[in-house]
Amino acid sequence: MSKVKVAINGYGTIGKRVADAVSLQDDMEVLGVTKTKPTFEARLANDKGYPLYGISKESVKSFEEAGLKTEGVFDSLLEQADIIVDCTPGKVGAKNKEDLYIPKKLKAIYQGGEKASVGETSFVAQINYDSSIGKDHVRVVSCNTTGLSRAIGALSSKLSIGTVRAFLVRRSVDPRDSSKGPINAIIPDPLTVPSHHGPDIQTILPDLKVITSAVKVPTTLMHLHSLMVELKDDASESDVKNVLEQARRTKVLHSKEGFRSTAEVIEYARDLGRSRYDLYENMIWEDSIVVKDKEAYFFQGIAQESIVVPENIDAIRAVLELETDAEKSMDKTDKTLSI
Amino acid sequence: MSKVKVAINGYGTIGKRVADAVSLQDDMEVLGVTKTKPTFEARLANDKGYPLYGISKESVKSFEEAGLKTEGVFDSLLEQADIIVDCTPGKVGAKNKEDLYIPKKLKAIYQGGEKASVGETSFVAQINYDSSIGKDHVRVVSCNTTGLSRAIGALSSKLSIGTVRAFLVRRSVDPRDSSKGPINAIIPDPLTVPSHHGPDIQTILPDLKVITSAVKVPTTLMHLHSLMVELKDDASESDVKNVLEQARRTKVLHSKEGFRSTAEVIEYARDLGRSRYDLYENMIWEDSIVVKDKEAYFFQGIAQESIVVPENIDAIRAVLELETDAEKSMDKTDKTLSI
Repeated sequence: MSKVKVAINGYGTIGKRVADAVSLQDDMEVLGVTKTKPTFEARLANDKGYPLYGISKESVKSFEEAGLKTEGVFDSLLEQADIIVDCTPGKVGAKNKEDLYIPKKLKAIYQGGEKASVGETSFVAQINYDSSIGKDHVRVVSCNTTGLSRAIGALSSKLSIGTVRAFLVRRSVDPRDSSKGPINAIIPDPLTVPSHHGPDIQTILPDLKVITSAVKVPTTLMHLHSLMVELKDDASESDVKNVLEQARRTKVLHSKEGFRSTAEVIEYARDLGRSRYDLYENMIWEDSIVVKDKEAYFFQGIAQESIVVPENIDAIRAVLELETDAEKSMDKTDKTLSI
Repeated sequence: MSKVKVAINGYGTIGKRVADAVSLQDDMEVLGVTKTKPTFEARLANDKGYPLYGISKESVKSFEEAGLKTEGVFDSLLEQADIIVDCTPGKVGAKNKEDLYIPKKLKAIYQGGEKASVGETSFVAQINYDSSIGKDHVRVVSCNTTGLSRAIGALSSKLSIGTVRAFLVRRSVDPRDSSKGPINAIIPDPLTVPSHHGPDIQTILPDLKVITSAVKVPTTLMHLHSLMVELKDDASESDVKNVLEQARRTKVLHSKEGFRSTAEVIEYARDLGRSRYDLYENMIWEDSIVVKDKEAYFFQGIAQESIVVPENIDAIRAVLELETDAEKSMDKTDKTLSI
C-alpha cells in the first residue's frame, strides 16, 4: 500500500502529536515538519527522524547554526505533499490557506484556533466524517468543541434532548508553558455568556441549542466540563450512562477507584504508558451522571493537548478519500493509538 | 444606649471578622472570644483587647504558658453573654447548641457550615430578616448561598424568573491555609449535580428552582459564580442590570477599568483600604450581564471570608430584637463597614 505524504506545518503542541500519530498509520507517512526556531522541539524532530523544514530562510539558517539537520525551506516541502496538516497558532492557518495552500492547490486540515470559515466543513469524526470526504479545506474543531460535540452528539443520537447548558472550566495554559498565568485567580473568559463555544458546537451539531459559559483557572492538566442537558423524554440515569459509555472515544471513570480530580485522571494516563500521558477520549465520571426532573448532569475531563489528534488522522483519511467509511477509519485510528 | 454582650465562639476566619464588625456597632460589644490553641490569632485577640477564653482548661493553660492574657474557660463567658455567635468549624455548632447553648438558654447565631436544621430559620438579611426576629437559633447561610441568594432574590423580587442554573467555581482554600491543595487540578465537588447549594438556597428562597454545579480550583482569593436565569417575561438587559446594580450589598464592576479576573477585584479591595481586603458585597461584572432568548447571564465574584460578616451583625439585631426594621439594621451595618 503506498502511503500518502503528510506535511505538518507547525511542530508544536498539536503538530508533534499529529506527527507521531501519522507515523503509526499504514496508509500515511510524515513527509516533513516545520518549525521557526531551533527549539528543543526542532531537535526532537531530528531525533525522531522527521524531516525538518524552516518556515523561512532565516529559520533554516538558525537550524544550521544550532547544528540541526534541515531539509530546507517550507516551500520545497509543499511541492511534494499530498496534504498539509496546519498546526500553526490560531489565525495563522487562515493566512497560510490564502498565501500558500490555495495558490499551490494543496488540500489542508486546520485546527480549532481558526474561524469556522477557514474550512468548507468543521470536523468531528464520529459525527460528520462523511461531510468532509473529498473536501479541500477542513477544520478540526477545538478541544472543548470536540469533547462537547462527542458527548452531546452521542446523547442526541440516542435520546431526545432539548437545550444543553455547559460550563467550561478551562486549564489556563498547557503544561509546557512557564510564561503565562494566572497563578491565583479565576478569569471569566470570555466575560460574556453565551461564550463562543456554543456557536462553534453548532458547526458540528447545527440543530441543537447549546449555551456555554467558560472560565480560566490556574491549572495545566485538563479542561473540565459540567453539562446540563434537558431531556425531552423520560430517559433514565442508566439510559444516559449507557449512551455515554458506549459512545466512541469516551472513557467512563469511577470515583471509588480514586478519580477525585483531573490530577488522578492524568496520573492514570501516565500509568497507562500513553505517549506524553495523552488522553484522546472524553473522560467522564460515571458517578457524576444524574438525571433529575428531565435534565441530565455529568462532569467530563478533556485533555486539551491530545483529544483532537485522532480527529486529525481521520480528517486526513476523509479529505484524501483513503477511507469513505467513517467507522473503518476510526477503528484503524483508535487501534494504533490504543484508544 | 446600653450595648448587648456578644460572645464569639471560635476566633478564626469568620469569628475574627465578626468580632471587628461587632466592635464597630453602637448597639453591641464583644464580650469575649474563644480559641483552642495559642496561635497568632489568639495573640491578635489579646492585642485587639478582646477578652480571650479557652475552650477548655487545657486551652487556658496553653495560653498562660504562651504568655497570653486569658479570662478563663468558655463556660464563664457563656454566663454573661446575651448572645453567642458560633464561628466554630462546620458541625461543631450543632453539637455546641445541644451541649451548651440550649442547656444555658442562650440565643445563638450559627454559620453556613452547619445543616439548615441547626436554626429555626436560615438568614440572608435583605431577603428574610423579619423571619428571624426574636428567634433563639438562627443560621447565617454559607458564602456561596448568601451571594447567590442576594442576586437571585433581587432578580426574583423585580422580575418574573424561572429555573436558575448556577455554576460555582470555588476557591479551594482560604489565603491563610498553606496545608491543603489542589495545586494543579480541577475537582468536581460535589461530584454529583445538582450540588447541595441549590437546596440550601431554597432555605432562603423556597419558591425558586435553583440548580447548582460546583468545582474546586487552585486559587484562594474568591469564588466565582456563572449564573443562567430563565426569564418568564421580556425583561431587557438593562432591566437586569438595573436590578443587580440597585440591589443592596452588590457592587458592579466594569471590565474596561481593568477587572479581568478575581485577582484585580481583590487588588481593588486592598486599594480601598478595607480591613483584611474584605469584600462584603457580591462583585458583579457589568459587562457580563447578557439577556438572550429569555435567559439572563452574568458572572459574580464572592469573597468567601467576608461576605457573611454583615449578615452576622444583622442576625444579632434580629434575634435580640434590637431593630425590627430590616432596612434600618442593614443601613447601620453597611455604614459601619463602609459598604
